[in-house]
Amino acid sequence: MNGARALIETLADCGVELCLANPGTSEMHLVQALDQVPQMRSVLALFEGVCTGAADGYARMTGKPAATLLHLGPGLANGIANLHNARKAGSPIINLVGNHPQFHIGYDAPLTSDIDTLARNFSCWIKSCSTADTLAQDGADAYTASLRATPGSQGQISTLILGADAAWGDSPGPARPNGLPQRAKVDAGNIEQVAKVLQSGEQAIIILEHDGATEASLEAAARIASHTGCRIMTGTFPGRIDGGAGRVNVERMPYFPEHILASFAGVQHLILVGGQTPASFFAYRTTPSRLVPEGCQVHTLARIEEDANDALNSLVDALGASKATIQRFENAQMPVPQGDMNTRNMLQAIAATLPDNVIVATDSGAGNAAHPVCQSAAPHSWLSLTGGSIGQGSPVATGAALACPDRRVLTLLGDGGAAYTIQSLWTQAREGLNVTTVIFANRKYNILNIEYARLGVTEVGPIAESLFDIGNPDINWESLAKGFGVPSATANTAEEFARLLEKSYSTPGPFLIQAMC
Amino acid sequence: MNGARALIETLADCGVELCLANPGTSEMHLVQALDQVPQMRSVLALFEGVCTGAADGYARMTGKPAATLLHLGPGLANGIANLHNARKAGSPIINLVGNHPQFHIGYDAPLTSDIDTLARNFSCWIKSCSTADTLAQDGADAYTASLRATPGSQGQISTLILGADAAWGDSPGPARPNGLPQRAKVDAGNIEQVAKVLQSGEQAIIILEHDGATEASLEAAARIASHTGCRIMTGTFPGRIDGGAGRVNVERMPYFPEHILASFAGVQHLILVGGQTPASFFAYRTTPSRLVPEGCQVHTLARIEEDANDALNSLVDALGASKATIQRFENAQMPVPQGDMNTRNMLQAIAATLPDNVIVATDSGAGNAAHPVCQSAAPHSWLSLTGGSIGQGSPVATGAALACPDRRVLTLLGDGGAAYTIQSLWTQAREGLNVTTVIFANRKYNILNIEYARLGVTEVGPIAESLFDIGNPDINWESLAKGFGVPSATANTAEEFARLLEKSYSTPGPFLIQAMC
Repeated sequence: MNGARALIETLADCGVELCLANPGTSEMHLVQALDQVPQMRSVLALFEGVCTGAADGYARMTGKPAATLLHLGPGLANGIANLHNARKAGSPIINLVGNHPQFHIGYDAPLTSDIDTLARNFSCWIKSCSTADTLAQDGADAYTASLRATPGSQGQISTLILGADAAWGDSPGPARPNGLPQRAKVDAGNIEQVAKVLQSGEQAIIILEHDGATEASLEAAARIASHTGCRIMTGTFPGRIDGGAGRVNVERMPYFPEHILASFAGVQHLILVGGQTPASFFAYRTTPSRLVPEGCQVHTLARIEEDANDALNSLVDALGASKATIQRFENAQMPVPQGDMNTRNMLQAIAATLPDNVIVATDSGAGNAAHPVCQSAAPHSWLSLTGGSIGQGSPVATGAALACPDRRVLTLLGDGGAAYTIQSLWTQAREGLNVTTVIFANRKYNILNIEYARLGVTEVGPIAESLFDIGNPDINWESLAKGFGVPSATANTAEEFARLLEKSYSTPGPFLIQAMC
Repeated sequence: MNGARALIETLADCGVELCLANPGTSEMHLVQALDQVPQMRSVLALFEGVCTGAADGYARMTGKPAATLLHLGPGLANGIANLHNARKAGSPIINLVGNHPQFHIGYDAPLTSDIDTLARNFSCWIKSCSTADTLAQDGADAYTASLRATPGSQGQISTLILGADAAWGDSPGPARPNGLPQRAKVDAGNIEQVAKVLQSGEQAIIILEHDGATEASLEAAARIASHTGCRIMTGTFPGRIDGGAGRVNVERMPYFPEHILASFAGVQHLILVGGQTPASFFAYRTTPSRLVPEGCQVHTLARIEEDANDALNSLVDALGASKATIQRFENAQMPVPQGDMNTRNMLQAIAATLPDNVIVATDSGAGNAAHPVCQSAAPHSWLSLTGGSIGQGSPVATGAALACPDRRVLTLLGDGGAAYTIQSLWTQAREGLNVTTVIFANRKYNILNIEYARLGVTEVGPIAESLFDIGNPDINWESLAKGFGVPSATANTAEEFARLLEKSYSTPGPFLIQAMC
């Protein structure tokens, strides 16, 4: 057995079920091993950013790492933007990056580059000196490192850069999976202290992120809120939040710094669970970076690597809140809107037709705007743009659909972001994934118009305008979808939009709707 | 004047004429500066890999650096694969990468990441601690560093990572361009020594790369060959080589290691000009990495940073070869082929219709195969895949067309590589660029089938097959082109292919041909 076979068998034994691949010549032995180990499903993508984004989506829905298979430095580079988003989401991922053997590096062949330095940008674990002897064990270690604890908890990214000689050389065979790390528990003193803050009668917000924002954690937090009168809030862009009718009613942090500060007005305590001190997404000349009102204290109940859910439940116990009522989102019967494709109508059409248990993936402003209105619609999982790197939505949707074949996925994309990783559609078509993609075709990078105005520039000159405008020519999204094998249609009215959404939900496989707005 | 304005004015004063941009919020002041300095042309791309690849194409045709404008770590990451190719091409490029101000970094906002570590993969010059005070001078230094010497010589990549506060802060104004470095001359003793080798009567090949492969360098090398009987050869994938009827008849190094070694059979001396010792593109178990026959000596006439053209001309003088006849490619009247779209017919159709002075950009196997047959066709410039990272061809073609509006550009792409950076088409449409794109639609990563067979695997299992196959579903390239605003058609026969090529050459603007093969 060669190193490649031992590695893939080891990963499969650990529980890795999916490999998102775009291999090249230096990965041929790994391809052969994937061919020999069919229990690991291999899915091809036409661009590496689709592989890594799909691994992120898969991790957000399963808590488990998928493997990616990437071709040397450039293949990894193409995947970095979505690995950045995955890191911010806390998604476990195992990158397998093929490389030249060490003996070949000195010849500076065309594909030679410093891969380790790229991997340092986003990896929690890197190894690049494997031999055929160690490769299987390195794979087991990469798996363990990708999990902060048992699957289902927040994870990290492992990158195993393997020379072709480690793959083709003789291996002693697969390695046994390592024991899994236990998640650190929060100190009892800390819980007592936070309990005292909450019992003080002073205004407080519990900010829930990562494992602090799972359904179980939200339920515990909601009991605390109901019992003490504090507010509960998720971050602006949670990796995953399960919402909709029947789910915990939780606020979501706004985007712009002035709006965040306004929502904190009068608050004396911010209590962090799984996340960090609120900060501005971007730096501005006129607003602070640290978004904590003057005189407000910041307490950390659980850090990202600690067991947030256990901490919240301990806090429930400490407060005697276990029987407190949970405030939940309520279903509102929303009529299907009629008329123009204005923002209100579009969002209402999405909410009114939202199918039960849908997974929504978005990296657009309009997608974010749909979130609040969907809270009184069907229960769903919502996957946000965690790291600010657009081109995440469609790959994440692809991975979520691979993870959850029984659930419909709805992808809400801006036209700017969708153009980054439009190759996702092809993988959706090949794998017959149940993904409905909505493109909000406003023909511009609209956020940049807003941000430019925030500088105080009231007149946009022709060059600046040309850099914000993605019309001229208008992108025809129906044609692009057809080009990648995905059926599609255009919605020019709200009722047409609702009808197309419903049609897509009842038809297996992918579908794309160009929403003219 | 703020730092951004001073930077852009400085770069324009240095001679930077083009900025390939995909900005975000942190680059708004730079956008404003571009709006105020219209002598630098701003061109938007829908994906950063198009920006960087276009900067590479522009540099190969002009010898001058273009600027790119990229959005933090993820924006830079998306551009790395083509920066890798640009580095191997020796193209000068100046990356401007927006970043959070230093005071904002510690808050770990979503787009925060270690940008320097990414830039280390491909940059010869990095600065990330600019202030508004230093930014203009840093821009002038980045320009100088991108050039090994005066424009027209081989260059390198500079990356200026600038905090938004350096852009928005008050600047003392533009900086004056630095003096340009002089290219190092080759030592006279070295020239004498190589002259002796060439006069020995022993078999020798002069291997010409980078500045050793410009038209002027090739003419000098051809006189040496004619005078001494040595052979002259370019590398496998030159960044640019001007060929076709009337140009210097020069061999091109084959791709596979066994073919390279076969072409060196009996050779006693390899003389390197502007390049390095021949090495295998990939490592294999059965062939060596260093491709020098036993007993063959390697001599370096000029290193990449040295003045190769001057060294070759000095060698001409030392040998008394200045009047030697130059062997040139001759024009062959090729009929337009008829019948099936087999490889021979396709390549002949390309050669038979090749317009004078065309620029050919390719990153595909079929594109490479077209090179020899085009040597007896019209004079042309040929831009190859220098770094092995596919998805280069279409962006490089875009940049070449921006550089040379009076020349037609022909892009020969495999369907696998074309899917990487298909967004290039939109920039071609917006800017009305004269680019004819041919997609060789064979529905597979064909090179991987070949490489897999080279492992000795005679049966390709279903999983391996699925990872090499990009049919199922077939990509409809006509639809993709239409989606990005580029007119297109499909060629099913050789005569149809030739007719579409000719039609595109006589029609301004971009055109895409799906070549069924």
